[in-house]
Amino acid sequence: MKTTVGVIGAGRIGKMHTENLVHAVPEAFVKAVASPHLDEGWAEGLGIPTRSTDNSAIFDDAEIEAVVITAPSGLHSELIRQAAAAGKHIFCEKPVGFEEGPIDAAIEAAKAADVQLQVGFNRRSDPSLLDLVEAVRGGRIGDVHTVRVTNRDPKAPPIDFVKRSGGIFLDFLIHDFDTIRYLSGSEIVEVYAAGGVLIDPEIGAAGDIDTAMVTARLANGALAVIDASRQAVYGYDQRFEVFGSKGSVAVDNTTPSRRVVSTTAGVVGRTPHDGFVSRYQDAFIAELRAFLAAVRGDSQVVAGADDALAAVRAAVAARESFNQNRPIQLADTVQVAGGGTQA
Amino acid sequence: MKTTVGVIGAGRIGKMHTENLVHAVPEAFVKAVASPHLDEGWAEGLGIPTRSTDNSAIFDDAEIEAVVITAPSGLHSELIRQAAAAGKHIFCEKPVGFEEGPIDAAIEAAKAADVQLQVGFNRRSDPSLLDLVEAVRGGRIGDVHTVRVTNRDPKAPPIDFVKRSGGIFLDFLIHDFDTIRYLSGSEIVEVYAAGGVLIDPEIGAAGDIDTAMVTARLANGALAVIDASRQAVYGYDQRFEVFGSKGSVAVDNTTPSRRVVSTTAGVVGRTPHDGFVSRYQDAFIAELRAFLAAVRGDSQVVAGADDALAAVRAAVAARESFNQNRPIQLADTVQVAGGGTQA
Amino acid sequence: MKTTVGVIGAGRIGKMHTENLVHAVPEAFVKAVASPHLDEGWAEGLGIPTRSTDNSAIFDDAEIEAVVITAPSGLHSELIRQAAAAGKHIFCEKPVGFEEGPIDAAIEAAKAADVQLQVGFNRRSDPSLLDLVEAVRGGRIGDVHTVRVTNRDPKAPPIDFVKRSGGIFLDFLIHDFDTIRYLSGSEIVEVYAAGGVLIDPEIGAAGDIDTAMVTARLANGALAVIDASRQAVYGYDQRFEVFGSKGSVAVDNTTPSRRVVSTTAGVVGRTPHDGFVSRYQDAFIAELRAFLAAVRGDSQVVAGADDALAAVRAAVAARESFNQNRPIQLADTVQVAGGGTQA
Amino acid sequence: MKTTVGVIGAGRIGKMHTENLVHAVPEAFVKAVASPHLDEGWAEGLGIPTRSTDNSAIFDDAEIEAVVITAPSGLHSELIRQAAAAGKHIFCEKPVGFEEGPIDAAIEAAKAADVQLQVGFNRRSDPSLLDLVEAVRGGRIGDVHTVRVTNRDPKAPPIDFVKRSGGIFLDFLIHDFDTIRYLSGSEIVEVYAAGGVLIDPEIGAAGDIDTAMVTARLANGALAVIDASRQAVYGYDQRFEVFGSKGSVAVDNTTPSRRVVSTTAGVVGRTPHDGFVSRYQDAFIAELRAFLAAVRGDSQVVAGADDALAAVRAAVAARESFNQNRPIQLADTVQVAGGGTQA
Repeated sequence: MKTTVGVIGAGRIGKMHTENLVHAVPEAFVKAVASPHLDEGWAEGLGIPTRSTDNSAIFDDAEIEAVVITAPSGLHSELIRQAAAAGKHIFCEKPVGFEEGPIDAAIEAAKAADVQLQVGFNRRSDPSLLDLVEAVRGGRIGDVHTVRVTNRDPKAPPIDFVKRSGGIFLDFLIHDFDTIRYLSGSEIVEVYAAGGVLIDPEIGAAGDIDTAMVTARLANGALAVIDASRQAVYGYDQRFEVFGSKGSVAVDNTTPSRRVVSTTAGVVGRTPHDGFVSRYQDAFIAELRAFLAAVRGDSQVVAGADDALAAVRAAVAARESFNQNRPIQLADTVQVAGGGTQA
Repeated sequence: MKTTVGVIGAGRIGKMHTENLVHAVPEAFVKAVASPHLDEGWAEGLGIPTRSTDNSAIFDDAEIEAVVITAPSGLHSELIRQAAAAGKHIFCEKPVGFEEGPIDAAIEAAKAADVQLQVGFNRRSDPSLLDLVEAVRGGRIGDVHTVRVTNRDPKAPPIDFVKRSGGIFLDFLIHDFDTIRYLSGSEIVEVYAAGGVLIDPEIGAAGDIDTAMVTARLANGALAVIDASRQAVYGYDQRFEVFGSKGSVAVDNTTPSRRVVSTTAGVVGRTPHDGFVSRYQDAFIAELRAFLAAVRGDSQVVAGADDALAAVRAAVAARESFNQNRPIQLADTVQVAGGGTQA
Repeated sequence: MKTTVGVIGAGRIGKMHTENLVHAVPEAFVKAVASPHLDEGWAEGLGIPTRSTDNSAIFDDAEIEAVVITAPSGLHSELIRQAAAAGKHIFCEKPVGFEEGPIDAAIEAAKAADVQLQVGFNRRSDPSLLDLVEAVRGGRIGDVHTVRVTNRDPKAPPIDFVKRSGGIFLDFLIHDFDTIRYLSGSEIVEVYAAGGVLIDPEIGAAGDIDTAMVTARLANGALAVIDASRQAVYGYDQRFEVFGSKGSVAVDNTTPSRRVVSTTAGVVGRTPHDGFVSRYQDAFIAELRAFLAAVRGDSQVVAGADDALAAVRAAVAARESFNQNRPIQLADTVQVAGGGTQA
Repeated sequence: MKTTVGVIGAGRIGKMHTENLVHAVPEAFVKAVASPHLDEGWAEGLGIPTRSTDNSAIFDDAEIEAVVITAPSGLHSELIRQAAAAGKHIFCEKPVGFEEGPIDAAIEAAKAADVQLQVGFNRRSDPSLLDLVEAVRGGRIGDVHTVRVTNRDPKAPPIDFVKRSGGIFLDFLIHDFDTIRYLSGSEIVEVYAAGGVLIDPEIGAAGDIDTAMVTARLANGALAVIDASRQAVYGYDQRFEVFGSKGSVAVDNTTPSRRVVSTTAGVVGRTPHDGFVSRYQDAFIAELRAFLAAVRGDSQVVAGADDALAAVRAAVAARESFNQNRPIQLADTVQVAGGGTQA
């Protein structure tokens, strides 16, 4: 009855997914975890039988029906191809890749193997965003005019990570491009990206930026804006708003506690969650359960191949827009040969 | 077209009412102000022609149609009688008096003289409370089950004021007893008052208390609670809630600014207003305009003789309840010979 | 490494605790569940080996180290005695009993058997309330002057439950009496309870009330108030405030989603959670983990025998206060021979 | 002691300013009002002695020291020149003009005549925004990284007004360009404007747009975004945020009442104010008082000639950006010969 799962990659996000699968997803059995620098004690403590530094321990195990890919982003598309070739259903962290060619190949491989492919756009499984979308789809705000996404991390990632991340647009704003499509129900057709290095010159030296303000035009005529920063010292700032002809619907930050202290110093509430692990805890569990439901044939994946590709296209276009300082239509991006950085 | 007004008493509240009349109530002409320790420069600066230390300068002026009484509370009922005898319409600050006998006499005098009598229950003119009451009367919360009033001053009054104030129930909670009647649309039939001296022993030495928690039973079966303190260091805390069979309606604190600062120290909003002058600025103006409209015959007073008396009865009963530590029915209070303090 | 647990009682709360133990408490192994009307399929689905209608299947199993008692409240003290006699550590739902005598006997039995006894005061494990208490204990609000607890269930319980519940004070406000002690760090010395039947006459016919407003005096001079209702149609209303010499600290309601819809109809947020299961999900898990930590000797129970008894004493005193309509000192309650209802 | 004032223009905003001057600005005496379609009864009711359809009744009156210009925007720069020629101090509604040339001439005239010139950027006098700026200037959020302005009118203006308004950028977003400069303390150096006709095709037919999303780059490297709509059916939506290296500071919407109704339908707060008159009531009064203080030599104007010009330059650049769909540097705008519309 349980789906047998293997996890590829056991860094910060890989560990989180694995722990969620073991502790909070009763319909999964984690048989294997593979990672070049595997933390043996951690995996053993979770009772995972197969612990390897080699992905073939997963791909070659016929009992394993599904894989969760959390390796570095640059490896995603190749790993998808390998998993598809091995006949495994695939949950892959975002972004599915840095360039359209390899992504297309990976998606084709998954289709050819007739396996499920879900991408880790966790916000789609967040209770508040689901509720927001329900209001939009239900017509409560009428026609969509604008979408606003605020995405601020509490702390800039390490420079080593920045260098192999694919850049802020592919690594960080990729969520926002997907969110805009998800909230609006429309496609992004043009983007204009402004940005800068305001937090850490090292990020600039690595060929990336740390602050971005992206405008997007949607196929239905609506406009969207992404307000993104790699460092909001007060916490993980995640806010969303869709505005339309009959009103607006918004989701504000959540906090670990509802405590408010009133003194002469002010009326002091708690800062938002300290990162995506705590903010999207429910969503991370829900997306895995949704993936397993799709594996069992009970439902559709919540974010599939087309969603993965559309978000990458928008991110690549935004990178080009930033580099050229002009709006870029998404059709233009076909020709773009992507490098991993802005510089 | 303007109503000619005289102001009796020019302490803190008297000055506030006078300035409101001059600057913000176009339908009033303040011809005179009388106070034993009148601040001449202040009155002259406002352009008030008659400035006196003697109330007869107001009572004897036939042009003055209405008086605003803001003298110490212990003088209110006698001043009402005098004003009524002089044929003046009367706006009197709360409480109208400390004991039922003199209050009854004052009310009778006003009725006999056929003049309007409005008492300074300013909350009845507050936009938020009017809105709350509109929801209750409109049936949005169904039958009223409970009423909750939070009344906390930012700073305990000077001991000299405490001594002649009539005590916390008559001076401070008098507003809350009126508010309960106003919000619920029902009469208070029994009260139980717990309290203590938690802020300043001087208040205890003056025979008063500084913290009170009063339960009231209403004629319609509902229950109410007053949560009162003489000192909330974070500001003037004024919150109201009516709860019923179909829901609840509440009014939270207002603040001088909507600014919120988010740093590592928290998400910091402004503290509430620093006192009744700023919190109820609109209400203080509106209650005077309502009084003048009643003087002109355009409407009813917003808080009349019956309201004044009912609130005093509840306050006196609460004082007795505190002294005897038992619930007191309001019918019991007829026999009460009131002193100004609890001790 | 895992603690072997048996669950006694599998009604609504029993099922919730069992599911939490199985899915969300890795340090527990649920070996057995016993209940007179056991839902076999549910227990089997959770993989619980021993499923019985007889508690002896648990008491007689030497492998079972700890029991979770969720049977009807009237049986709690006897079950504690039996569990202690069998040498099991005990987590018992509130209230531990209806009368002091049997409760004392149960507590003595647990002490004699040298087993841990934790009572199900789940709020003590709620992240927001823990945070509130941290502010109080840390001195941020100075000396405690008042405590306010709002406790409103979304829907009145079935009449059958009401009849064997011990009445509103022992069944429902028992949490609030504990919360007042927990938040203030002081003991309740006197209570005054007003109340009525405002929601459902059937509740009155069963000898109980559905709305209560209780004032409590604390040993440190502070005052507390409980504002309780069996039915808030808009959801489970759980609010807390502690006010003191340097400020106040409060916890407002939580909601299942942060969605806010703004239309011409208003700015509409979600109603609070629909009941204790969703509101206190984290707390219910945390209290079990804390109990198991105490079983392992790693920490103290978060709510022990003294806490259980103190809350029952306050509840019994409140019931007497309501019946006699006068304040009752807790020392008075020694003589009280408790019946299960107010009438 | 009072400054004698003449008001030019008595449309909606002119009437508002006039009433504020008469009722709420004790330091002003409104001697005259001039407007081609003057509402005589209204002016007489306010007690204004000189009521004319001819501005010369104001310019030629030597007693009048200061004028308040509220005529249609297209006349502003010419009226400023005339007022300066007549030696009057000038308060002028925004925008000061549609093109740089005439604006420069007007500003030069005011300088030559040595009269004060204040432009009606009312937000600079709003208590919440003043408070926000105080936090920014005080260093509480560190270096400014981003600024966000949400500006949504409750209802699109009449088409007749749209046609002579100068277009959405000069008429409506002009406030936002000033606000960005005011909040950030930095100059706008480049803008990119996306927009569309999403509300009313008539607006498009008039050569204007009704929805705009503008990105601005500031001299200090920060980025800003304006999210503007001509119609938010739920009310006048005015929100502001400045985000920086040490945190963020924000101002949310204000509402006419703090009432919140909780029923099964949700937790329902009031919608924002219904327009600028009620939202910025305090600011409109404060800006006039500040202007009069500057006239008396007591302080600086809160928004002067340079501010007026800078906002117009940004607005004109935004219009060009929208027309050309590319970012426009503000230096580029020197060559721009402005028309009143986008088409």
